[in-house]
Amino acid sequence: MFIRNCWYVAAWDTEIGRTPLARTILGEQIVLFRTEDGAPVALEDRCCHRSLPLSHGRLEGDRLRCGYHGLVFDTAGKCVEVPGQRTIPPGAEIGSYPLVERWQWIWIWMGDPALADPDLIPHWDCMASDEWTCAPGNGRTPLEIACNYELSNDNLLDLAHVAYVHESSLGSPGLADFPVETERRDDRVVMTRWAFDITPPPMIVRYCGTEGTIDRWQSSEVQAPCHCLVDVGFLPTGAGREGRGTVPAPSLRVPITTTPETEKTSLMFFCQTRNFAVGDAEFTKNVQRDFLAVFLEDVAVLEAQQRMFDLRPDAPSVDINVDAPTIAMRALNRRYLDREQRMAGAA
Amino acid sequence: MFIRNCWYVAAWDTEIGRTPLARTILGEQIVLFRTEDGAPVALEDRCCHRSLPLSHGRLEGDRLRCGYHGLVFDTAGKCVEVPGQRTIPPGAEIGSYPLVERWQWIWIWMGDPALADPDLIPHWDCMASDEWTCAPGNGRTPLEIACNYELSNDNLLDLAHVAYVHESSLGSPGLADFPVETERRDDRVVMTRWAFDITPPPMIVRYCGTEGTIDRWQSSEVQAPCHCLVDVGFLPTGAGREGRGTVPAPSLRVPITTTPETEKTSLMFFCQTRNFAVGDAEFTKNVQRDFLAVFLEDVAVLEAQQRMFDLRPDAPSVDINVDAPTIAMRALNRRYLDREQRMAGAA
Amino acid sequence: MFIRNCWYVAAWDTEIGRTPLARTILGEQIVLFRTEDGAPVALEDRCCHRSLPLSHGRLEGDRLRCGYHGLVFDTAGKCVEVPGQRTIPPGAEIGSYPLVERWQWIWIWMGDPALADPDLIPHWDCMASDEWTCAPGNGRTPLEIACNYELSNDNLLDLAHVAYVHESSLGSPGLADFPVETERRDDRVVMTRWAFDITPPPMIVRYCGTEGTIDRWQSSEVQAPCHCLVDVGFLPTGAGREGRGTVPAPSLRVPITTTPETEKTSLMFFCQTRNFAVGDAEFTKNVQRDFLAVFLEDVAVLEAQQRMFDLRPDAPSVDINVDAPTIAMRALNRRYLDREQRMAGAA
Repeated sequence: MFIRNCWYVAAWDTEIGRTPLARTILGEQIVLFRTEDGAPVALEDRCCHRSLPLSHGRLEGDRLRCGYHGLVFDTAGKCVEVPGQRTIPPGAEIGSYPLVERWQWIWIWMGDPALADPDLIPHWDCMASDEWTCAPGNGRTPLEIACNYELSNDNLLDLAHVAYVHESSLGSPGLADFPVETERRDDRVVMTRWAFDITPPPMIVRYCGTEGTIDRWQSSEVQAPCHCLVDVGFLPTGAGREGRGTVPAPSLRVPITTTPETEKTSLMFFCQTRNFAVGDAEFTKNVQRDFLAVFLEDVAVLEAQQRMFDLRPDAPSVDINVDAPTIAMRALNRRYLDREQRMAGAA
Repeated sequence: MFIRNCWYVAAWDTEIGRTPLARTILGEQIVLFRTEDGAPVALEDRCCHRSLPLSHGRLEGDRLRCGYHGLVFDTAGKCVEVPGQRTIPPGAEIGSYPLVERWQWIWIWMGDPALADPDLIPHWDCMASDEWTCAPGNGRTPLEIACNYELSNDNLLDLAHVAYVHESSLGSPGLADFPVETERRDDRVVMTRWAFDITPPPMIVRYCGTEGTIDRWQSSEVQAPCHCLVDVGFLPTGAGREGRGTVPAPSLRVPITTTPETEKTSLMFFCQTRNFAVGDAEFTKNVQRDFLAVFLEDVAVLEAQQRMFDLRPDAPSVDINVDAPTIAMRALNRRYLDREQRMAGAA
Repeated sequence: MFIRNCWYVAAWDTEIGRTPLARTILGEQIVLFRTEDGAPVALEDRCCHRSLPLSHGRLEGDRLRCGYHGLVFDTAGKCVEVPGQRTIPPGAEIGSYPLVERWQWIWIWMGDPALADPDLIPHWDCMASDEWTCAPGNGRTPLEIACNYELSNDNLLDLAHVAYVHESSLGSPGLADFPVETERRDDRVVMTRWAFDITPPPMIVRYCGTEGTIDRWQSSEVQAPCHCLVDVGFLPTGAGREGRGTVPAPSLRVPITTTPETEKTSLMFFCQTRNFAVGDAEFTKNVQRDFLAVFLEDVAVLEAQQRMFDLRPDAPSVDINVDAPTIAMRALNRRYLDREQRMAGAA
């Protein structure tokens, strides 16, 4: 079961063009392409005649022709031509999905089109700002992960795992002693930790040549159902929480969104943005390589978890203190899902 | 569910010999071999003792010895020897199936042996005639297709797909404007289209050096449940339908039979026969290569359809005019199947 | 369903150490390691917090730390540390399993720990005796077999298959004429055959340079549920059954135990011991190579059987005379299983 009335990232902007692209989202088969004017289009990837995926077909202008019997569909999914006959049979149409192109990504709305408000897309200005350099994550393709998307949410709202999963890159001694704050807002959960007078992690030392200790923040903000902005940065020791915004603070903002492909597979789209070494291409290459390595450490854990849940779906689990943000986030998604199902039941 | 009281092709004649061959037909495991005299034999491929496939065993004269404990079965499936004991336990026998060797193929009867009339095998004389050269399809092996056999029937009774699936080889402009006739006979459906004064397709031009336009026929005759004869040919423009049989007409007859292996996989046996360039081995090689390429274009479509039906088994479908022959054929097979089930219910 | 109150081999002694080893036994995920003192430990391979396999974690002294959030478990499966908090949540523990290290193998008890009596481990002294040379089977790793463990029991209690499965190595003409004796004892079935004045099989001729005929015994003793000792040897013709123990008799004793991994996969642990060519390393290498080849002949049969049972789970089967020991053994295991289920029902 998935939340439908929300935006999901369907593709990188550069993944789609004049060759139909097949993608599975929330268990549905979707074909993506661009019109001659460059507008992105998403249709059901199944001909309503004999079920051949339309991604096997070809574009003719702004229309998609099935590769089996040549039925033609317009960008709204309406069949507009059936070879060998003048009339279009009743019901000859396929699903279409609202799309918005923003922040280098193609966002798709899987629910009621009347509710598809583009302002519900996360406001990730750092992905398109002169003050921030944006580096795509896994090249400009999604990272395929064999797990349910909520395991990825859990991972991103959890700082406790850094010391164990990312020990060599992001870990930093003493960090776990500083408290984590969990904030529940309307449509999101924010987890924040400030640490003061602390040794920076190896990656920051390598990137910024930092000497001595720092004051440091780490936060993850997850907007339902799966849109996460990780925000980390540091200040000179003593600048503290109040210094943020007044003292220059090197920081990374990492937009990550995990689109459910099926109940057990997901597509992760992510990039790194930074407000230091802006425009430095060599630096960007290093950041990309380092972050991909970190993400792959998470992927190994997430896929091992999923395999275990598959083997033992009813095994009991114990919660611990650091779970507060992930429990809040799962509860939030559950409320959205319940509300949608009540609405569907009423309709 | 499959129709059982009919012949299916089990193998090319050259596929079976003195080494047992395992094959799955209608979901049943079957072992095929020849006796010392060359007679083909088909037995259940499972020892009645501890279920080892008998295809793991070895032939001793006309008998098959199990490769585990050495039980021996005769060509009727009766156990005739149990090592270490004098008596044969009651019930020690396995299934056997009537076979007929004809048209280079080994035909198997999966239903009531009392009904196994060899005259029900398709009358494909072109496969064994001096006036026709016969070229085996995929070498002399079946083409494995991951789809239900009826998707292949659909494909073969459908001319509309030629323009899209086989555009570069068989397509020919304007062809779709000529009407398709559907004829329902007792045990078969025949689809025919005549086109007059029309540009020949690239393949005919290449094969026959044809210049200008032609009169042309295309037909598919499918005998229940899965035996198709495609018949295509052409005459000088103006000779028309009446000219057939009086004016020399280069033609190809293509016997194709799609044996159900399981509900979702099939084995296609096919060859091409022609009444021109008779005996020309070089020509034969070219025809084989070209036709295999065409068949593989179909296989890509059929397997993509099957995958989509697996993902969305209950998706609705819309019919169009060109479906008349395929709908008739599916209805015919359904009637045969229903009749068999009624008979089984009564018995 | 598996018998739980018994020992199974979990690993070769050399397979486990200071790196956690994941293994599946009776369908349960288990992690194996050694403490700093070398004592073997088996725990449930699933963190009670968020289900990451603990085999992804690391040892700290005698304790295992989860590789996700760092929970620490002691050798009894009790959680003793949760990073970021002082108290351990109630229920934070995982399963642990009694182990015994014996005969080069790590034996695990999957049932009620109170019943885990080490004396129930098979008494295979030949694996640790100066008079016998012991050669590990498949290197020092289990042989993975895609079949239920009882098919392996059947195979080991059955001499009839030797003539067909192992014709070139172990077969010997005329052997099938000598009777097989089946003996049912408390917790085991013993199958024995003596043959007199008989040509030795190719392998014995090769190993021992035997000329002329021999008197020969073959026996398999299977202790429930899956512990088999094959014992074969020979004497000069005429020494007979009475000669055993008085006349020198070259013999091989082959301990084989087939641990159920799942209902359809097993791990076979085996070695060969012999009382001739004792200590001859070159000879050992040859025995190992020859026996592995023989075992792989069985594996091919067992996996083919399992595939057929999967395809036709309800197919009937016929018993023959040589099945007496295997039928007795299956009945014995069934009684153990029924008794455990009655006890579980009563509790």
